[in-house]
Amino acid sequence: MLSGPSGVGKNTVLNQVLRQIPGLSYSISATTRKPRPGEVDGVHYFFCDQEHFADLIKQGRLLEWAEFCGNKYGTPRDFVEEKLSSGNDVILDVDIQGAAQIAKSMPQAVKIFLLPPSLEALRERIIARGAETEQEIERRLCAARQEIQRIVDYDYVVCNDNVDEAVRQIAAIITAEKSRVFRWLSSNDPANFFEGSEG
Amino acid sequence: MLSGPSGVGKNTVLNQVLRQIPGLSYSISATTRKPRPGEVDGVHYFFCDQEHFADLIKQGRLLEWAEFCGNKYGTPRDFVEEKLSSGNDVILDVDIQGAAQIAKSMPQAVKIFLLPPSLEALRERIIARGAETEQEIERRLCAARQEIQRIVDYDYVVCNDNVDEAVRQIAAIITAEKSRVFRWLSSNDPANFFEGSEG
Repeated sequence: MLSGPSGVGKNTVLNQVLRQIPGLSYSISATTRKPRPGEVDGVHYFFCDQEHFADLIKQGRLLEWAEFCGNKYGTPRDFVEEKLSSGNDVILDVDIQGAAQIAKSMPQAVKIFLLPPSLEALRERIIARGAETEQEIERRLCAARQEIQRIVDYDYVVCNDNVDEAVRQIAAIITAEKSRVFRWLSSNDPANFFEGSEG
Repeated sequence: MLSGPSGVGKNTVLNQVLRQIPGLSYSISATTRKPRPGEVDGVHYFFCDQEHFADLIKQGRLLEWAEFCGNKYGTPRDFVEEKLSSGNDVILDVDIQGAAQIAKSMPQAVKIFLLPPSLEALRERIIARGAETEQEIERRLCAARQEIQRIVDYDYVVCNDNVDEAVRQIAAIITAEKSRVFRWLSSNDPANFFEGSEG
């Protein structure tokens, strides 16, 4: 799970991570928001109406969901679980509340927080993304400040000072996490480690 | 800290890790053992007499020490602490007891266990290293079995099936561990994260 404040450059980093790591899948969100020009159903989002989204919630088919500006966004459970059960990794772009919700049902999930190098850098990126009013910029900076308080809930913090370096760190985290002892123990028994190769 | 049974190929992996990661230092052990042909003081070991070794213990200048076959081996504290305080990383080749001793005084240290791919592979490597008697081979395999029981005390387990892949995993672990939130929090305050860049 990758979280980070608006403007930190999460999409750029995510896209490069997905390009560099074979077998890593991006979890596409479901949303009731209308597609913007250029957005493709099943690529950028799974677009669905309010009724269908309500069904997904009712049937427990979302790992997490939330509402922003009147639109609902959620993480479809089936896609994530199918990928994981076939031995693939999935990367999720989730906000702090979403990450906390998912961590409850999937404690083995890894939480990475993408950090801006500085307040100025974040402000510039928010302006570059087209936040028009000074008020809107300040609102996002304020939200970033609050999000950074929750870094304690994360496993890793990666500073997006340089995209290549951030991508390199995230790729290393994904590789390293596969070697964690608690994951090895979930499918190996140290007491019988040599059994498979004996006799 | 890198541990693993005799014959797992720890030295080969260690040497490649050291070659690939700039700024990573190898912690040279102190020993009372006599140098073997080709061994250089300060490169392979710090060779010292019983009296000097006893002084190191008495002065608390060893992070851990143990006795094998009448010879004492220990990890000099000064070297490790100097490297760490100047921002460098140190890799230690320690056995299970040594790793446990060091973890008590340095809980932030990372423990990696290097695992053989199979019993046969380990047996072949032990034979290749020149263990002559069947009894000695069995003694080492028995020790390996016992060491593998302690994998639960480690953070990571890396299988040395392929040296390049094992080295790649250890390098990723070293990179990833630098991004761990608890390390970031030890030198950053989320409440004042933006302070440095403001005003």
